[in-house]
Amino acid sequence: MDFTEETAVTAVRDSFAGTADPRLRELLDGLVGHLHAYVRETRPTPAEWESAIGFLTEAGQKCDDTRQELILLSDVLGVSMLVETINGQADGTESTVLGPFHVVASPPRESGDNIDLVGGGRPCVVTARVVSTAGEPVPGASVDVWQCNKDGFYDVQQPGIQPLGNGRGLFATDAEGRVWFRTVVPSHYPIPADGPVGRLLRATGRHPFRPAHIHFIVAAPGHRTLTTHMFVADSPYLDSDAVFAVKTSLVVDFREIDDEALAERYQVSAPFRLAAFDIVLEAAGEVPTRPVA
Amino acid sequence: MDFTEETAVTAVRDSFAGTADPRLRELLDGLVGHLHAYVRETRPTPAEWESAIGFLTEAGQKCDDTRQELILLSDVLGVSMLVETINGQADGTESTVLGPFHVVASPPRESGDNIDLVGGGRPCVVTARVVSTAGEPVPGASVDVWQCNKDGFYDVQQPGIQPLGNGRGLFATDAEGRVWFRTVVPSHYPIPADGPVGRLLRATGRHPFRPAHIHFIVAAPGHRTLTTHMFVADSPYLDSDAVFAVKTSLVVDFREIDDEALAERYQVSAPFRLAAFDIVLEAAGEVPTRPVA
Repeated sequence: MDFTEETAVTAVRDSFAGTADPRLRELLDGLVGHLHAYVRETRPTPAEWESAIGFLTEAGQKCDDTRQELILLSDVLGVSMLVETINGQADGTESTVLGPFHVVASPPRESGDNIDLVGGGRPCVVTARVVSTAGEPVPGASVDVWQCNKDGFYDVQQPGIQPLGNGRGLFATDAEGRVWFRTVVPSHYPIPADGPVGRLLRATGRHPFRPAHIHFIVAAPGHRTLTTHMFVADSPYLDSDAVFAVKTSLVVDFREIDDEALAERYQVSAPFRLAAFDIVLEAAGEVPTRPVA
Repeated sequence: MDFTEETAVTAVRDSFAGTADPRLRELLDGLVGHLHAYVRETRPTPAEWESAIGFLTEAGQKCDDTRQELILLSDVLGVSMLVETINGQADGTESTVLGPFHVVASPPRESGDNIDLVGGGRPCVVTARVVSTAGEPVPGASVDVWQCNKDGFYDVQQPGIQPLGNGRGLFATDAEGRVWFRTVVPSHYPIPADGPVGRLLRATGRHPFRPAHIHFIVAAPGHRTLTTHMFVADSPYLDSDAVFAVKTSLVVDFREIDDEALAERYQVSAPFRLAAFDIVLEAAGEVPTRPVA
């Protein structure tokens, strides 16, 4: 039977009939259905399709050890955030995107350490407490944090200017589920816009900015691992994050503190910012209760 | 409003509201709708999505001047063929995929030239006639042909073994719309399978083979340009082309001729193969009459 608009989806799905892994087959069947429906509906010309292929090719070739243009593409199309939302916790702290900058291991650090190895920004203390959905502290949880500097750059974007590991730390919670660290207030920043994704943003009148945030991955035995951000409440772009990652529950007040005694306790100089992040982890067995669309 | 499964498509489409080009906005709106629907339906885990990103990244990085892995991906998913089908002629010769090997300009040649610069295959004569839908000859049409050799490789795949331009020729039709050339019978061949697309084929139990064919792009002023193949009727894999490109109307008998007089007329030695391809071009103003799905 000839390949036609009407027979195409069946022909391609049939070709995957020998797929050993049933999940792979399910993912491919869905991909073929939606990809073909997209083409039938929008009816791209060969030149338009070539242009799409060229875009993806350029995106792939833009990637290297510290740049992931296809994650950026997934991010600006809201797909990364949708995947996170689908897989997020039902009852615990909300998750958000991993982003493309978790590319080096965070250096192990002790509570109280300063993850700002450079200086010059607004001093800041972050305290976090990890609890279960029942409110019980989770001791020994690993808390992996990474953030950009005061100018909006991650360490890996500024080799020679920032030492590798700047703005990063891997902590463990104490018996009360607590961890704290010193840092500088991160800046809002543009996602890398010198590649095809930046061109897409310009062609569509979109700005490339993300509101200021600190990334967290929190993991503990017996609990679901949480990938999320803590957003800085007075940052610009909270309403128009280029990667759609803001959730109201993740926006945290970075209070200005001008109290010498408190500054001394946290080993910073006043005034400084103080931000507290409450993290609730579900038990590992719990599954999202959100309905399947 | 927070980003949820329910609000995601609207949020991302709204972000494209400032797109200057209405066609780009239409293509992006459709992409967001289908990509998000795919994710909502198949509910990939973060690890599965990372794996998809990794696959596309590897595909992009596999591309170079003579290798286009993302066209291959589009080909094995039947999308290239669907785009061709949608844009194909309604009344003229059917079109099929361009494929990834039209990467160098075909050398200009005269009717009767031999495009096989190496020798050793089964000698073959191809005659073609280009006519309008009314059956009138189209003189001065450009007929761009390219094919693999007897072993199934294109010139660009075998630098140092085949001279660049082997198996390629750019001809012009005569006053009767005719062109002919000498060559060798092309072989069936596997698409390049040493990259991520090859891995996909193996994981899904699919073979990588394409039936033997000669590529054509035929263009003439006042007519729609036609991209197609002429398939060799006795080739294996006509029923399971890895890229879904076979249309019954494009399968041509390569007759075995053992006639010294005819061989002398075509400047080949008997026995040889003789194949005739009738090409019908629509007028440029005609649009496909197939219904929009």
